[in-house]
Amino acid sequence: MPHIALSNSLPGITGLLAHRPDTAEPLGHLADVLLRTASQLAPGERELIAAYVSELNQTPFCAASHGAFAAAQLPDGENVVKATLTDPDTAAVTERIRSLLRIAAEVVRTPRPLSDEAVAAARTAGATDDDIHDTVLIAAAFCMFNRYVSALATELPADPAYYAETAQRVLTGGYRAPRTTAAS
Amino acid sequence: MPHIALSNSLPGITGLLAHRPDTAEPLGHLADVLLRTASQLAPGERELIAAYVSELNQTPFCAASHGAFAAAQLPDGENVVKATLTDPDTAAVTERIRSLLRIAAEVVRTPRPLSDEAVAAARTAGATDDDIHDTVLIAAAFCMFNRYVSALATELPADPAYYAETAQRVLTGGYRAPRTTAAS
Repeated sequence: MPHIALSNSLPGITGLLAHRPDTAEPLGHLADVLLRTASQLAPGERELIAAYVSELNQTPFCAASHGAFAAAQLPDGENVVKATLTDPDTAAVTERIRSLLRIAAEVVRTPRPLSDEAVAAARTAGATDDDIHDTVLIAAAFCMFNRYVSALATELPADPAYYAETAQRVLTGGYRAPRTTAAS
Repeated sequence: MPHIALSNSLPGITGLLAHRPDTAEPLGHLADVLLRTASQLAPGERELIAAYVSELNQTPFCAASHGAFAAAQLPDGENVVKATLTDPDTAAVTERIRSLLRIAAEVVRTPRPLSDEAVAAARTAGATDDDIHDTVLIAAAFCMFNRYVSALATELPADPAYYAETAQRVLTGGYRAPRTTAAS
């Protein structure tokens, strides 16, 4: 049961967003810019980083949601997401994405400068300054989203089909679309 | 030296915001909603929570910046900020704010549900559901801002007078005002 009374029974962050449209607006804006607008990283790759960070942060609602959004946008998506969340060292991703997942893991651990080794490895694998910037900010943003969802003890959806259904809505309408009905 | 090449030599997050206006826009929007728009918590109280979280996260640019913004908006602000960042248990803040600082510290530690004890203590001290919500989201957001600033190894300002000068600009123009010149 959530730590605060909500105006609805929507699961995870969707309940918080519907309850507080004032804070939902900039949060949805940020998610759209980080995960959906034009970038050198494909939307599915950015969702994969978000899912991986959420898995490290042990926030199952976000890991399953962004895992589903990544799976819907990557070739062989379901297998790639499952393998990445289990062990990015052996997952079938490019070396550039693998090196960025390592940077994301450093961001999760604690707020301190990235190691020179992780940055150098990313550059060797072809990552640009914008790739490194975007990975750091996505990982940092999910350290926020995960804490918001976990600290307030939001509920998980009753039906795991919720995540794939939500993926279709997010892929079509983005993160700023109103969420007034439960998908499950 | 920052881990990525920036288009400017502004310190801390200001350099990142000026370098990337696409991500600066939603980040400034979020900071304005969390720290400046109407809320049951005064702007100075919310800045104090932001400064305290930044101190716990060992991100001196953010701790000094939001400490200066809190000091400029609270009675006996400089002393209250200094005492809070040193030991919130003995600082001259209300019991409601002290209980919310404890909630913020739990959010910083790891993404997991707040303890029932911390939530109960906040309610006993007069905190509302919105106070708890806003404190959690401010603390979570600064887990993002602190990681963004620290991971990319941004610079500190050369002159410590920078923070008080910036406070005047933020108090007047908010977090979405363009920052194109260094204050020091």
